[in-house]
Amino acid sequence: MAKASRLSGFPEWLPEGQLVQQLVEDTARRVFELHGFAALETRAVEPLEAMLRKGEIDKEVYVLRRLHAAEDEPDPGLGLHFDLTVPFSRYVLENAGHLDFPFRRYQVQKVWRGERPQEGRFREFTQADIDVIGRDTLSFHHEVEMAVVMATLLGELPIPPSVIQVNNRKLAEGFFRGVGADQPDLVLRAIDKLDKIGPARVRGLLVDEVGLSERAADQCLALAEIRTPDASFVDRVRALGVRNDLLDEGLEELAAVVDGANARRFGSVVADLRIARGLDYYTGTVYETQLVGFESVGSIASGGRYDSLATDGRQTFPGVGLSLGVTRLVSVLLGRDLVTVSRKVPSVVLVAVVDDASRDDSEAVAGALRARGIACEVAPKADKFGKQIKHADRRGIPYVWFPDPSGDTVKDIRSGDQVPASADSWSPHVTELRPTVSATPSQEERP
Amino acid sequence: MAKASRLSGFPEWLPEGQLVQQLVEDTARRVFELHGFAALETRAVEPLEAMLRKGEIDKEVYVLRRLHAAEDEPDPGLGLHFDLTVPFSRYVLENAGHLDFPFRRYQVQKVWRGERPQEGRFREFTQADIDVIGRDTLSFHHEVEMAVVMATLLGELPIPPSVIQVNNRKLAEGFFRGVGADQPDLVLRAIDKLDKIGPARVRGLLVDEVGLSERAADQCLALAEIRTPDASFVDRVRALGVRNDLLDEGLEELAAVVDGANARRFGSVVADLRIARGLDYYTGTVYETQLVGFESVGSIASGGRYDSLATDGRQTFPGVGLSLGVTRLVSVLLGRDLVTVSRKVPSVVLVAVVDDASRDDSEAVAGALRARGIACEVAPKADKFGKQIKHADRRGIPYVWFPDPSGDTVKDIRSGDQVPASADSWSPHVTELRPTVSATPSQEERP
Repeated sequence: MAKASRLSGFPEWLPEGQLVQQLVEDTARRVFELHGFAALETRAVEPLEAMLRKGEIDKEVYVLRRLHAAEDEPDPGLGLHFDLTVPFSRYVLENAGHLDFPFRRYQVQKVWRGERPQEGRFREFTQADIDVIGRDTLSFHHEVEMAVVMATLLGELPIPPSVIQVNNRKLAEGFFRGVGADQPDLVLRAIDKLDKIGPARVRGLLVDEVGLSERAADQCLALAEIRTPDASFVDRVRALGVRNDLLDEGLEELAAVVDGANARRFGSVVADLRIARGLDYYTGTVYETQLVGFESVGSIASGGRYDSLATDGRQTFPGVGLSLGVTRLVSVLLGRDLVTVSRKVPSVVLVAVVDDASRDDSEAVAGALRARGIACEVAPKADKFGKQIKHADRRGIPYVWFPDPSGDTVKDIRSGDQVPASADSWSPHVTELRPTVSATPSQEERP
Repeated sequence: MAKASRLSGFPEWLPEGQLVQQLVEDTARRVFELHGFAALETRAVEPLEAMLRKGEIDKEVYVLRRLHAAEDEPDPGLGLHFDLTVPFSRYVLENAGHLDFPFRRYQVQKVWRGERPQEGRFREFTQADIDVIGRDTLSFHHEVEMAVVMATLLGELPIPPSVIQVNNRKLAEGFFRGVGADQPDLVLRAIDKLDKIGPARVRGLLVDEVGLSERAADQCLALAEIRTPDASFVDRVRALGVRNDLLDEGLEELAAVVDGANARRFGSVVADLRIARGLDYYTGTVYETQLVGFESVGSIASGGRYDSLATDGRQTFPGVGLSLGVTRLVSVLLGRDLVTVSRKVPSVVLVAVVDDASRDDSEAVAGALRARGIACEVAPKADKFGKQIKHADRRGIPYVWFPDPSGDTVKDIRSGDQVPASADSWSPHVTELRPTVSATPSQEERP
């Protein structure tokens, strides 16, 4: 339901679908604010130079130019941001003197990537990000906190169960160095291809291109297979016999994230040593999130710790963040019919119009209802009542109000019950005040 | 306060400023939904061809291309939308089969224009639009309704008084034809320059370029001087001695909008026959809105009736809409210090941390408060309590919570009062739950 896209990669929803997106964004905002994150918005454009330095080198950026730019007008070199982390770190650098650190912010905005569209991958999409960023230092415990906040948010949405998969860059880098790799980032990139090309070909890459020994390659592949719901991964890594100080630090941090997050939200986090994350700027914990049963759409919430993304040479602002893929999540919910919307419009009441001369009376009723927080609309035409009721029914509006000098009445068009009512005191049931989005029953019942 | 822009025309706010923008957007959403408008979002890009056909011909559009586009890749001809009306009418055409007409929607999104930045004029800015769009027909009374909804919204914001100035295209066109103008749109464009070049030069344009007689030019200028708070403009127009059927229709409609809107919201609307609006697609009522005392920043809410913007040749979808310039309004409020924000963060409580070993106890308190809808954050470090209190004070957080095995206490750091409290029952005052934005007192007291 509710899909309405005509330009590939640029999704648009019907009003029902927009209500689902609104629920996701509203819930994100509520949970983020309850955890003390302040709202922020950054401009949609960034200097190309800064984006290309900070992000993946092959990131597909959209470049802007003014249609009527003069021939000799210098190209400002601006592009649309491809994530919210790079703009946020730029913002922090520019405004550090006005911010209080550690600075906690959330940001719900669109981002753009000129990639080939496919399921769950768009050219324009909305992200909901949280980050905590410190000046000079940032305590490790925020890496636990991020996972807990995101798990709390996901737990409040009418969506299938999700699990946050966590790894640690120090663990990976220390391990790769421990087996003799000089360029651990090359190993990471090869491991990142496991899902795409399988272990045999990754092994080939590690030996032929990264220059690892066959034994070292096998050890790296063995590491990537480790996935545990608790800190038991530590023993399994130790059993691989690799020793390195950075590895030890990473093991300790990852165990603290998994144990810490699961202590506060049981079963929310697993250690998954295959998780690599493409972006270069991560330095500690990295997160991805699977929607159980819908793993093929990719991660719905990703992020990590970054120590030196925001630096001007004098000061450094280490941060940690997680980004919910709002559009990806909503597209799954709509595409697989996982949610049901109670009605298409905010109105809970349609105020009928008896005749054109008395439209003002109907508007007065509507005004009185709105003053009490009851969303309503006045029938656009003084049609026969049957037609006005049909107008409400098509939109899912449950009540039709009939103004009457001898006493107003309101009709529940689902049951047919019609009762006397005053616009100064009548209320619908509190659960009917706003459209609701709930998990589609048939899906809940699936094994 | 709260300005933070480094790239001219691309405004960004500090967290305090973002709270002001959030208040404007939240209030818009609440008022629009109470009036039965459904939320909608369209993609940020549109085919250039469609935008240039529908908008002003000299509109400064930003064109997109992929950074890594292949040499032989066909240019998709996409640009960033410069308003929300053209995308909405395209959306309605594409999805007419799934929508219920008249269709009422609101849309809060960024738009982009490559214009020269100046006060109140940006290259990237947020608009909050409402439109009602019909299939084949749309009743006139929606032209009254639009003004009432926008006046209601503006009345709920902590901003200076505003007045919606209304004119009517039929009135103008009929009058111009009545004085002998063959191309009334050229007269309209000349009149639109009154503020910029003054009546003497507009008169010159009308005579020399549009080809009006001197008497006709004077009549047009006399028309543009008429501004009344009620329907008395009708007699003043009649007194100019011009007769035309379309003029009569326009006079009747404009009188109905002014009287109808003022009957429902007294003093919200004036008839102002100078209002032209640049866009070609308006066909009936046109609206602009001045913030009294801040007229120089331009209109903060504009729109009009459009009969044939959305048409595919077979079907036509006439509409009427109004667009609130969120960024322009917020930039005035911030730039002139017209509003005050109660605190910079959503947290109303900072939960202190006694020592690193007991951080989990502090997190448990925070969890209990959040479960009851109380936004809070846990101190990032187990510093001395004085330093933790200072951390709260800098952010404007009014309460600091001290977990204690022998009984928690909470301190109001404004008064210094510290009382025993339980996270399962204590609440701040309801007005403190969220940051508030209010009119700055010194400004309210100004004459």
